[in-house]
Amino acid sequence: MTQASIITIGDELLIGQVIDTNSAWMAQELNKSGIRVARRVAVGDVWDEIWTALDEEQKYADIILITGGLGPTADDITKPLLCKYFGGKMIVDEAAKQNVLDIFNKLNRPIIERNLKQAEVPDVCTVLQNKRGTAPGMWFVKNEKVFVSLPGVPHEMKDLMTDDVIPRLVKQFKFPTIIHKTLLTAGVGESFLAELIKDFEEKLPAHIKLAYLPNYGMVRLRLTATGFDAAETEKEIDNLFETLKLLVSDYLVTDIDEPVENVVGKLLIAKGKTMCTAESCTGGYIAHLITSITGSSKFYNGSVVSYSYEAKEDLLQVDKNILETRGAVSEEIVLQMAKGALKHLKSDYVIAVSGIMGPGGGTPDKPAGTVWIAVGNKESLQAQKFYFRFDRSRNIQLTAMNALNFLRKFILSA
Amino acid sequence: MTQASIITIGDELLIGQVIDTNSAWMAQELNKSGIRVARRVAVGDVWDEIWTALDEEQKYADIILITGGLGPTADDITKPLLCKYFGGKMIVDEAAKQNVLDIFNKLNRPIIERNLKQAEVPDVCTVLQNKRGTAPGMWFVKNEKVFVSLPGVPHEMKDLMTDDVIPRLVKQFKFPTIIHKTLLTAGVGESFLAELIKDFEEKLPAHIKLAYLPNYGMVRLRLTATGFDAAETEKEIDNLFETLKLLVSDYLVTDIDEPVENVVGKLLIAKGKTMCTAESCTGGYIAHLITSITGSSKFYNGSVVSYSYEAKEDLLQVDKNILETRGAVSEEIVLQMAKGALKHLKSDYVIAVSGIMGPGGGTPDKPAGTVWIAVGNKESLQAQKFYFRFDRSRNIQLTAMNALNFLRKFILSA
Repeated sequence: MTQASIITIGDELLIGQVIDTNSAWMAQELNKSGIRVARRVAVGDVWDEIWTALDEEQKYADIILITGGLGPTADDITKPLLCKYFGGKMIVDEAAKQNVLDIFNKLNRPIIERNLKQAEVPDVCTVLQNKRGTAPGMWFVKNEKVFVSLPGVPHEMKDLMTDDVIPRLVKQFKFPTIIHKTLLTAGVGESFLAELIKDFEEKLPAHIKLAYLPNYGMVRLRLTATGFDAAETEKEIDNLFETLKLLVSDYLVTDIDEPVENVVGKLLIAKGKTMCTAESCTGGYIAHLITSITGSSKFYNGSVVSYSYEAKEDLLQVDKNILETRGAVSEEIVLQMAKGALKHLKSDYVIAVSGIMGPGGGTPDKPAGTVWIAVGNKESLQAQKFYFRFDRSRNIQLTAMNALNFLRKFILSA
Repeated sequence: MTQASIITIGDELLIGQVIDTNSAWMAQELNKSGIRVARRVAVGDVWDEIWTALDEEQKYADIILITGGLGPTADDITKPLLCKYFGGKMIVDEAAKQNVLDIFNKLNRPIIERNLKQAEVPDVCTVLQNKRGTAPGMWFVKNEKVFVSLPGVPHEMKDLMTDDVIPRLVKQFKFPTIIHKTLLTAGVGESFLAELIKDFEEKLPAHIKLAYLPNYGMVRLRLTATGFDAAETEKEIDNLFETLKLLVSDYLVTDIDEPVENVVGKLLIAKGKTMCTAESCTGGYIAHLITSITGSSKFYNGSVVSYSYEAKEDLLQVDKNILETRGAVSEEIVLQMAKGALKHLKSDYVIAVSGIMGPGGGTPDKPAGTVWIAVGNKESLQAQKFYFRFDRSRNIQLTAMNALNFLRKFILSA
């Protein structure tokens, strides 16, 4: 089976200043075309280390994809290194030069020598034109292995991969079909799920793998099938997936690989209903998750992020006395927030949250991590208390996930 | 110099289903203690590939940190593999067993055999107790190399690293001092910056490196010094960093490694002022960035996420006629949103945004990516039109970054 390796270059990855999101995206796209990524390696902007990685990765892979290190600044050494590695000399690529000139023209910025250097490429590569930036992609072949160098800027890399690299790879190699089927469960732990589907898992054939992906109190289950007969492989995994869905039906949130906010959105669209949010402790994160969905304006009206007491009173008409006697993190307040949001944001459904995300702000009877969540509609509201014991960022995420799942269940039961 | 390598295990990393945030965090922490991460490798849940990675990485590193693959389910093969790799046999660790029992007791969940198996460890390792979860860490030594296996769940891994792994490593090895100093610039491209500091960069000694980190229209510059004399190294980098700051002073946002929302927050706290936001197209993302800062309730009052026309009218008193004649994405509307938010969220400063993030929703004269941003206070408001040409997620991020930087400049000039 044809395998790929991804090499990402940049000191920022090795000191942890930047999180590598490119590799995940590339792996997804390669997988869709039947290319298995066997390894991902990150190395710094260090000549010997890049050279070694190129030597090493061709032992494990037929296709080596390299990102990063192509910028116009002195710390970017990938291009001269590749030129030497593949035994070429640098020449100006006229199409790449025209592209640099066009980009600077459009931006109305003065061009400097350093920018024009971006159009130089080793004469032993096929140049992949980069419409989004000044660093062209480069395609090398050595010992029947394909090496592709791409810029590290995500949108430039993505366009090059989609428009150029993957179509070329598909033409050159014969790839098997790889099919993933993923479902999402809530309200059940990984170990308990494993017991529930133990017999199913033990009987899986070798070319079908099952993975458990726990995340924020939910667990995704993923089946992966590999085979050269696409129709046969698809049929086989479809049947197994149906069995798996039945086994976990009590906990099933969705049978495709999508986040819970998508599930809520689709439910609302199907019913022709709308929703809104009133967020205190999550500070707009639930709104952000929902509005990250393309087309969310069809079902989402907005949020009141009421971080201060005054905002809760002015925008949501929360009772000042109750705020002072019971505190903002209480059942009464979160229900009043829900009512206020339903009214002012004129929506059918609502989520309201109020809590203490930490690290500060806790008290003995309301420690950091205490959260009240309310969901409902004009007829009925439900409130529930949660307690999360993690750091601020994780508490915010857990609150959002649980709130969205709480509303999902309310809509289904209403 | 002592080097480390990080091996992350899990098919989900190689098919791109999960973004690896663990490695970045680990690298940061190791760096703080003077340990350079030379390589990061991700491999799947495949016996031979994990084995090969263990063989390979010890060629490059003295310390090999391994995360993932320690769960209770069948796809987690790391523990038996490590047992075989280091020539041990599995035994029950009594402290780890007690920990599993305690965790299930606290959760009030029934314990099953599979959970208790988590307490089994190879008899050739030092067990690192995991207070946050059921999978203990394991410390192996072979050929004078240290191998540490940690769970992949972020908060479990983090606690083990901070409380146990790093203190042990620091005791065992002699590490140099590694110091990073980072500044953030806005309003200038990478190439132009490079020209501006060309002479400075060329004169840097070999043990001090400069990196350019462009992100969302801003560029961070990072100096990294390595040396065995901590005081000497610090003095040297401090001097160079002061020079660098002077060279880029026209574009300087902050001289520490922090995001722009932190800079805004600190400015407001220093002045004893507050802010609020009115967000349409960013859908709560600016609020989320701000409220991710611990203590942001000191300066942030909240946001109206007015996704629908009705929300803009009801909560921000935007003029319905103007909405209908000029559209929501217009200078008039964004200024009215800013005024409405200032009033209802009773704040000193405001950011308001209204735009089309795409992919849909564009028109010939307002294509997707068109955004109006307003910032200001009760005395004065400024509005500016931006045009971003990326995907939805990136357009949202670029809008947020530019809005925060726009407010930062307003506060400084006011």
